[in-house]
Amino acid sequence: MLIVMNQDATSQQIDAVTAAVAALGLRAEPIPGSSRTAIGVLGNQGYVDDATIRNLPGVRETLHVSKPYKLVSRDFHPASTQVRVGPVIIGDGQPPVMMAGPCSIESEAQMLASARIVRDAGATILRGGAFKPRTGPHSFQGLGVEGLKLLRQAGDAVGLPVVTEVMRIGQLEDVCRYADLLQIGARNMQNFDLLKEVGRLRVPVLLKRGMSATIEEFLAAAEYIVAEGNDQLILCERGIRTFETATRNTLDLSVVPLVRQLSHLPIIVDPSHATGRRPLVPVMAQAALVCGAHGLMVEVHHDPAHALCDGAQSLDGPQFARLMGQLAQLTAFLRDQRAAETGAAC
Amino acid sequence: MLIVMNQDATSQQIDAVTAAVAALGLRAEPIPGSSRTAIGVLGNQGYVDDATIRNLPGVRETLHVSKPYKLVSRDFHPASTQVRVGPVIIGDGQPPVMMAGPCSIESEAQMLASARIVRDAGATILRGGAFKPRTGPHSFQGLGVEGLKLLRQAGDAVGLPVVTEVMRIGQLEDVCRYADLLQIGARNMQNFDLLKEVGRLRVPVLLKRGMSATIEEFLAAAEYIVAEGNDQLILCERGIRTFETATRNTLDLSVVPLVRQLSHLPIIVDPSHATGRRPLVPVMAQAALVCGAHGLMVEVHHDPAHALCDGAQSLDGPQFARLMGQLAQLTAFLRDQRAAETGAAC
Amino acid sequence: MLIVMNQDATSQQIDAVTAAVAALGLRAEPIPGSSRTAIGVLGNQGYVDDATIRNLPGVRETLHVSKPYKLVSRDFHPASTQVRVGPVIIGDGQPPVMMAGPCSIESEAQMLASARIVRDAGATILRGGAFKPRTGPHSFQGLGVEGLKLLRQAGDAVGLPVVTEVMRIGQLEDVCRYADLLQIGARNMQNFDLLKEVGRLRVPVLLKRGMSATIEEFLAAAEYIVAEGNDQLILCERGIRTFETATRNTLDLSVVPLVRQLSHLPIIVDPSHATGRRPLVPVMAQAALVCGAHGLMVEVHHDPAHALCDGAQSLDGPQFARLMGQLAQLTAFLRDQRAAETGAAC
Amino acid sequence: MLIVMNQDATSQQIDAVTAAVAALGLRAEPIPGSSRTAIGVLGNQGYVDDATIRNLPGVRETLHVSKPYKLVSRDFHPASTQVRVGPVIIGDGQPPVMMAGPCSIESEAQMLASARIVRDAGATILRGGAFKPRTGPHSFQGLGVEGLKLLRQAGDAVGLPVVTEVMRIGQLEDVCRYADLLQIGARNMQNFDLLKEVGRLRVPVLLKRGMSATIEEFLAAAEYIVAEGNDQLILCERGIRTFETATRNTLDLSVVPLVRQLSHLPIIVDPSHATGRRPLVPVMAQAALVCGAHGLMVEVHHDPAHALCDGAQSLDGPQFARLMGQLAQLTAFLRDQRAAETGAAC
Repeated sequence: MLIVMNQDATSQQIDAVTAAVAALGLRAEPIPGSSRTAIGVLGNQGYVDDATIRNLPGVRETLHVSKPYKLVSRDFHPASTQVRVGPVIIGDGQPPVMMAGPCSIESEAQMLASARIVRDAGATILRGGAFKPRTGPHSFQGLGVEGLKLLRQAGDAVGLPVVTEVMRIGQLEDVCRYADLLQIGARNMQNFDLLKEVGRLRVPVLLKRGMSATIEEFLAAAEYIVAEGNDQLILCERGIRTFETATRNTLDLSVVPLVRQLSHLPIIVDPSHATGRRPLVPVMAQAALVCGAHGLMVEVHHDPAHALCDGAQSLDGPQFARLMGQLAQLTAFLRDQRAAETGAAC
Repeated sequence: MLIVMNQDATSQQIDAVTAAVAALGLRAEPIPGSSRTAIGVLGNQGYVDDATIRNLPGVRETLHVSKPYKLVSRDFHPASTQVRVGPVIIGDGQPPVMMAGPCSIESEAQMLASARIVRDAGATILRGGAFKPRTGPHSFQGLGVEGLKLLRQAGDAVGLPVVTEVMRIGQLEDVCRYADLLQIGARNMQNFDLLKEVGRLRVPVLLKRGMSATIEEFLAAAEYIVAEGNDQLILCERGIRTFETATRNTLDLSVVPLVRQLSHLPIIVDPSHATGRRPLVPVMAQAALVCGAHGLMVEVHHDPAHALCDGAQSLDGPQFARLMGQLAQLTAFLRDQRAAETGAAC
Repeated sequence: MLIVMNQDATSQQIDAVTAAVAALGLRAEPIPGSSRTAIGVLGNQGYVDDATIRNLPGVRETLHVSKPYKLVSRDFHPASTQVRVGPVIIGDGQPPVMMAGPCSIESEAQMLASARIVRDAGATILRGGAFKPRTGPHSFQGLGVEGLKLLRQAGDAVGLPVVTEVMRIGQLEDVCRYADLLQIGARNMQNFDLLKEVGRLRVPVLLKRGMSATIEEFLAAAEYIVAEGNDQLILCERGIRTFETATRNTLDLSVVPLVRQLSHLPIIVDPSHATGRRPLVPVMAQAALVCGAHGLMVEVHHDPAHALCDGAQSLDGPQFARLMGQLAQLTAFLRDQRAAETGAAC
Repeated sequence: MLIVMNQDATSQQIDAVTAAVAALGLRAEPIPGSSRTAIGVLGNQGYVDDATIRNLPGVRETLHVSKPYKLVSRDFHPASTQVRVGPVIIGDGQPPVMMAGPCSIESEAQMLASARIVRDAGATILRGGAFKPRTGPHSFQGLGVEGLKLLRQAGDAVGLPVVTEVMRIGQLEDVCRYADLLQIGARNMQNFDLLKEVGRLRVPVLLKRGMSATIEEFLAAAEYIVAEGNDQLILCERGIRTFETATRNTLDLSVVPLVRQLSHLPIIVDPSHATGRRPLVPVMAQAALVCGAHGLMVEVHHDPAHALCDGAQSLDGPQFARLMGQLAQLTAFLRDQRAAETGAAC
């Protein structure tokens, strides 16, 4: 941390800051400049909470060098982490994982029809929402535990592991009974108690970025889970909130190469929620793979025109099959391109 | 709802949309224009979920007239709601409520010292955090139930009701035992399960606006609580996330008159979290009252330089006492001004 | 500036950075930490352009201590600046200036009627737009030079100096002939050539904050004008762009006390453009004065229902007269309050 | 346009709105609903300015169906536009155009060295900035007309047309003398006078999206140019301003397929300014092509460590050559993929 003093800071003020740093068990190193003094803080092993310093007389601002996360950073853990969901492995060196299925679980027939479409097109994880976070209480809230059973049943019928969202700690037991991968939704990215609880489980977790979370906050939220002992964690970019309203959210694809650089955890992309517009989903899905995403989560419904939720962003069977064909070609292309570059580099 | 068709929409497409509207039990009224057709939807009692319509062939967009909330709106319930917290009444016609105290409960001595400052200056509700939402897991997380006891003890010692944040459903029983007013923090504004649970209680609730929540989403979150039967609900603006980093958040004061117009619920303002800078707190607190806020929540610590959390935005005793003096004068001024206007209007 | 190195930075990399700093004529001071090295940069008189350093091998990030502005800062120029517009003085120690008038100049009759309303209610500067920045080319673009003449004529008729927006360098001669105060609009805040040109004039300038400008960028834009020799400059907050769409922009009132602290220039507030909603204008205007604004700019039209531009946010005569009465009372209250505090502090 | 009335709107208020619509030469069609009345507006040929309606008594809000642009829309002009810059054609059916070169023109040697790198790697348009928009006045502002000559000279030496930014109307003559393509920068996207002037020229234009411009505003800005008669216009996405600070801006790639759908104009992407980080440029460049961009603008410098501007986001020669190789492979892949799909569709 660097503490920047006011131009007219007195030597008494500088001494008081130095003492406050020492009180934290750290060392202060004043750096006199031509117009003002800065004070370097040394000896910390990680992020320094500057609450006792930021407001001392004479302090203009404090600049943080360390980040509020450590265990999820590549600095601390250079090797890439792979996450296993049933027979599927997600991470570096693996083909991109495809998670697909309806936004909401609506009925046995709908879930089974959608699951077949998803499996037949080549996806390897089935998604479906039983507990739905909806802006207002008068919208369809999901089938709950009944939905979890239908999801499991459909997954078993087509031979795919399943992922579903958990919204509260009290649902964890039920969700763990039926699901192979637990999703923490964007609205719960900073539901820290829920993060700690899933960190104590030995079940893989998919953590979606909050709609106004910085990358630093996203990784700090992941740190909550890993700090409790669960490193089977996949990150997911799903669009952020900006002033633009033409798309449901703004898909921030540059987060993918950035997270790959900063963290050892795999990261996937959800182009369906990000854009909220079906015609944009296939093109943004392909762009995500080019950016290095370890997989995708896509909404697929056997009959989007009658979906109870998010029909406007769901692909139907033929659209999804076509996308899967495109993604297979693109994956092969990217693999060859990277192999050629690695070969050329030898 | 208004459904806007593409310029080249066919009459078959228009018929299909009309049929889809009828399938929802509503009436469709095509409005042919010079270049395109729009279709009005009539007969709905509230917000229409457009999932089955938005993606039909030929539909360009759907425009919502109704809002995803109803019970909290002044349209539905014109009379202003008053909320009672122990002996304190919050709402129209009442003097602005002052909630104050430390960000975190740290110790018996700190809590008691801060409580005395708060009470002596004239505040009527004591705040203190026992469960703290922190960006990273390596920061101080609060004293938990032990903190709740210290808060209650300090409140009893100075004769003030107390407010504290609840972060998860599992904490509700404990928090209800010790607190008079339950706070739902900004990060939990869309923790819908928690909203529903507090909606089932008969305890007053303070709901903070999410850091990237629109006013519509804020009121829809409030609707979750009121829809379960609990109308003892106070809203709280605490700053939103924008591109500006000079302040911790951007305090959106225009939300105060807007919410007063749209809803019958009282709304207060938290200038401490909004600005994150102590020198801005008093001036923004006064501006909030001018905007019509029904009260304020302010961070006060007997010794901010040694606070474990948010010291940089906390007022100390003399600063808070001075602010309370200013607010008392301002409140008297505003009351006289409004009385004169009402008199003049007669 | 502080240069933060990667954890695994080599001593060669550190040496290269030290050399690059020296090449800028500055001194580098390495600060070895427990896990990584930081390098302090000393000897600079102001902002350091880090382009040659930021991308050297081993550099993680650079943290700026100095700001991209100097002349407008209170650090450099502690005494508050007063700006004179005809007989009106704007700045510390002066009553808040009221600039008011229609968004667009539409006709001689409209301009004169609006000017009388404005003058009769007690405003001291008349506003009116002759050159109008409109989102699309098919909207009314203003009367141009003909409008300037009508504005001048109306100002002379009621005895008030006038302010109007200048959009391009080629308009400066005309605008200077007719106006007493030049307005640079939000869309031109970073039209640097225009800023430089008005900086070379000896005419007072009103600079509006860009709709997505940080305070730092706002002050750096002001620096362009002052650096050319013109310190007769008033800043104006007019709302920023955020995700919220219930108001036209989000009025960022905390910028007022912040700018007063960081800069010696006066700052006023435009609640009309900020909110875009007439019922919010009076309350936000009053809040701005409480925040310390040196004045206000308010849209007033003698017949808003027939305004060619921004009718929805314009006050009519009685509404404006009522607001002026409220502001007079509030100004007296604030003056007394501050006097009492200053007295008490003696 | 749809006008939504308050629930308690009187029939007199509805009549007054109907009359105001008629006064605009349009037809009003009241649509009575179960709880409130809406009024459809018919007969307009384009965007309706609602200034005289939005604020009538009883009006809750107005919803726009038409957009503030027409000539640039595909609705109005279905065939894709191609833009010709010297021998290069940009648009549908053409290989993606590569514009590359240094941020700033610094010297003859630098410009020539960078131009050779750019040409040798296969780019077809050379970029270089002579007039530089910089946040503060104390940063390097560009070489001006001298720079233009160096750019032209370098372009001629390597046989490439050149693009450069024009910041003010007074520079147009000089810039047109030396450049083949005029760039309007993000800060000038709503400098409407400049837009109109370049609209009157017969020179191709590159219009960058403003950093907080919605897609609707972006297309409305383009409309200013096309409305003056110049349809040789290329749009350019270069990142938008959001709360995220880990990247310089947030690259909004979904704007590419959206603009392709809404408009007939070509659109390219600038990944250098969008990310501000060299390691992200190649990957985001490739993602842009997958999204359907008609080309790219990339910063290339023969010696980024000594660049006077934006060195941290510039590629050097080997990095750019490698990127061009990747892009060539990707372009071939995408062409084959599209050809196969078109074939399969027959």
